[in-house]
Amino acid sequence: MTYKEQLTTHFNNISEVCVPGLSLDCVIFGFHETRLNVLLLRWKGTDEWCLPGGFIVKDESVDVAAGRVLHERTGLDRLFLQQFHLFGDAVRYDREDTWRRQKMPMPFGSAAWPERTISVGYYALVDQLKVTPMADFMSDECSWWEVNELPSLLYDHKHIIDVALRTIRVQLSWQPIGLNLLPEKFTIPELQRLYEAVLGRPLDARNFHKKIMGLNILIRMDERRTGKAHKSPYLYQFDQERYQRALINGDLSFV
Amino acid sequence: MTYKEQLTTHFNNISEVCVPGLSLDCVIFGFHETRLNVLLLRWKGTDEWCLPGGFIVKDESVDVAAGRVLHERTGLDRLFLQQFHLFGDAVRYDREDTWRRQKMPMPFGSAAWPERTISVGYYALVDQLKVTPMADFMSDECSWWEVNELPSLLYDHKHIIDVALRTIRVQLSWQPIGLNLLPEKFTIPELQRLYEAVLGRPLDARNFHKKIMGLNILIRMDERRTGKAHKSPYLYQFDQERYQRALINGDLSFV
Repeated sequence: MTYKEQLTTHFNNISEVCVPGLSLDCVIFGFHETRLNVLLLRWKGTDEWCLPGGFIVKDESVDVAAGRVLHERTGLDRLFLQQFHLFGDAVRYDREDTWRRQKMPMPFGSAAWPERTISVGYYALVDQLKVTPMADFMSDECSWWEVNELPSLLYDHKHIIDVALRTIRVQLSWQPIGLNLLPEKFTIPELQRLYEAVLGRPLDARNFHKKIMGLNILIRMDERRTGKAHKSPYLYQFDQERYQRALINGDLSFV
Repeated sequence: MTYKEQLTTHFNNISEVCVPGLSLDCVIFGFHETRLNVLLLRWKGTDEWCLPGGFIVKDESVDVAAGRVLHERTGLDRLFLQQFHLFGDAVRYDREDTWRRQKMPMPFGSAAWPERTISVGYYALVDQLKVTPMADFMSDECSWWEVNELPSLLYDHKHIIDVALRTIRVQLSWQPIGLNLLPEKFTIPELQRLYEAVLGRPLDARNFHKKIMGLNILIRMDERRTGKAHKSPYLYQFDQERYQRALINGDLSFV
């Protein structure tokens, strides 16, 4: 089957089994070595990138559909997954320009190309080391990109990422952002790097340490992080119950 | 034209000019004399109530459509209006039961009844005294109901109101909830009543006074609220610039 035939089959199938005119786009955030990243797909045969996304089967809950798309890309289940915005502008992006950049063989055989697609945005927070990014037949590559150094993006996906990033900044004090982006055990400097990466600015180390310790939401392990020459900082875990309470109380604000 | 003919014309028109399968529902919050209220419509010839809502014209932005619906119900423009959730469950409510309760002459002549409707929820915050509630041809009455004493609601609108209420509770510290629900000038006790109504619990008057004054976001007027026998409390306005800054900093948390 040629690529054009594959696309035709794919979109004919979508028009038959999916809710028309509504798509979903997922901003999957990962954190690794001081960097906040998003998972992107490179469109087949191009240098253009896009967010993982998909459509909603006619009898499927929208939230379930988002979980399915994320599972397809990351292999993970039970991700921390949140709706954050409906992108419903009458004209979301220049379609002709997008088709040209993604080298879409338009018009291909599908009668199913809707005039307008409204998209619901989800963000997910994952421990990046647990993820094996997987491309699909429309893409050559699936990989992590730092939020400050994004490649050329198709559709309105730059805007969608910007809105997602603003959302997690605001929600840092009342959603379990840290819990979901960090591995189970982490050092205080690693936690500070995460807050800095999300907020996009440095925090004073002494104030951060004082505030975090004052919240009483961390449990110190007996282990230390080894491998560094000059010091071996202790590892910590979140005290889940106290962490949840601090989130509800809005105590985690570092803004 | 009979009611059934009106309905048929209405829904045929919608299926012709609107985005299929997507609706919007608006939770319009108003505040009056210590009570937090929502604006509801009573379905024609029944004692069943529902939220104002509508559909999105094919070339209309979803946000613009929400503003249009709110204008139709309240007469107001430039409302504080926020998307808060997409209600996308595969089965949102028992349709047969809902049609029976709303005495819908089903099946009526419209071929346009979609199998499933996904709805995007908006909340609006209005100064209740500025609103003249307006019913439409499908309703007998449009009026305010206190959030704790809601009547029998159609569809999944009880759930939508619950989610909207949870949303404004969480957002009380970083969205201008107070600014939009209060008249321009207000007393400190009136502001406290608003916070209590949104949070659903009493706050200590002395602590509230101390905290609000400490934030430096209010400007005291020369006027006082007169008409009460025993005292005449001063009127205040928000210092808009400082208020916005406090919202950004998350300083307004009373949770």
